[in-house]
Amino acid sequence: VKMALSLDDPVFRDFAFYATASVAKMIDMSFLTVYRRLTRGVFANPEDFPKGAPKKPVYDDALVERARRNHLNDIENILPFLLVGSIYVLTKPDPKTALWHFRVFFFSRVLHTISYQTGVQPARGLCYLAGMGVTFSMMYQVFKATY
Amino acid sequence: VKMALSLDDPVFRDFAFYATASVAKMIDMSFLTVYRRLTRGVFANPEDFPKGAPKKPVYDDALVERARRNHLNDIENILPFLLVGSIYVLTKPDPKTALWHFRVFFFSRVLHTISYQTGVQPARGLCYLAGMGVTFSMMYQVFKATY
Amino acid sequence: VKMALSLDDPVFRDFAFYATASVAKMIDMSFLTVYRRLTRGVFANPEDFPKGAPKKPVYDDALVERARRNHLNDIENILPFLLVGSIYVLTKPDPKTALWHFRVFFFSRVLHTISYQTGVQPARGLCYLAGMGVTFSMMYQVFKATY
Repeated sequence: VKMALSLDDPVFRDFAFYATASVAKMIDMSFLTVYRRLTRGVFANPEDFPKGAPKKPVYDDALVERARRNHLNDIENILPFLLVGSIYVLTKPDPKTALWHFRVFFFSRVLHTISYQTGVQPARGLCYLAGMGVTFSMMYQVFKATY
Repeated sequence: VKMALSLDDPVFRDFAFYATASVAKMIDMSFLTVYRRLTRGVFANPEDFPKGAPKKPVYDDALVERARRNHLNDIENILPFLLVGSIYVLTKPDPKTALWHFRVFFFSRVLHTISYQTGVQPARGLCYLAGMGVTFSMMYQVFKATY
Repeated sequence: VKMALSLDDPVFRDFAFYATASVAKMIDMSFLTVYRRLTRGVFANPEDFPKGAPKKPVYDDALVERARRNHLNDIENILPFLLVGSIYVLTKPDPKTALWHFRVFFFSRVLHTISYQTGVQPARGLCYLAGMGVTFSMMYQVFKATY
């Protein structure tokens, strides 16, 4: 074994840090959704309503659905980054180049969330494309190394 | 290479077992959704209806949507566990502590599904928090090892 | 360390190739959704509409929702494949058997998308089952090796 996923490898250590930070960023959407539901009294299941409240599920609250779409968008983008990224680390990339891939991705997703929740376009679209660009760049390196 | 993901490492073997069990748990939601659709005659695509039936997609069947929300909740929670967990294994955690992390997570998600499908609160919320707590504990270890 | 995830291992190299190809296949659903939204003028957020257009979110456009359901189905199936597959590689499977697992999975998902977007049943259902079968076969190997 010449090269493997290990925290002794500085590139993997950087990846591990930003990968976990990206997962933390993704999970924060769970909390935002719960917060929106609690403060707006909007739930999808009858049993979630507080005692005494009418148990009528609501599926179209604008702010709750915005948080849920944001969460799904994170899943659609962050999970591919994590999976492709962990293989990319094994292609022995230049450590500085790799670190910038991870940084740009992570911060693009933080800014994506901020612009999504504040409703700012085209900032949200550009952040989305920046993150996607990082994933594509890593994909290209993986295909080059495995084809 | 001092440490890497390998089935020769007992911690990784435990993780591999519970990670795969958690994925199996997640996939069972696909089958529950298909079962609900078939038994209730509720489909999202016109081409999914049996011959002769009126081909009118339905998007708001309570039991089908409950299974789908449960599935999405699994995705939102189990995938972060798997990704953070595989890095956590590399931080050389105490094997017993690690095993308990994996066990608590897996069983919290099994109980979460049971309480979700039977509509029992606050059991569902507590199971959700237990699983999230395991992921946060592993995240903390990863950040400590990679920062 | 006797065995670990490494591009020096031919089985892992094959997995890395098809795993990344499967992620690329999954990401293409993002582009299909964006394409559908732009060509049909259907958006979920008020700020996504072009200037001058009435900013009324639409959540039930048949073609947009079809793309989104397809995307979610990819997430529900491709991510488990990737996670179970990376552990399966470590169980030292026969390289030819492993390669056929990866190939069948990848092409089943490509054909699944084609039959989903063209609305062809039972082709879509059969492709779904083929992919699921591959994941189950790998799961079985992982359980045998880690139990």
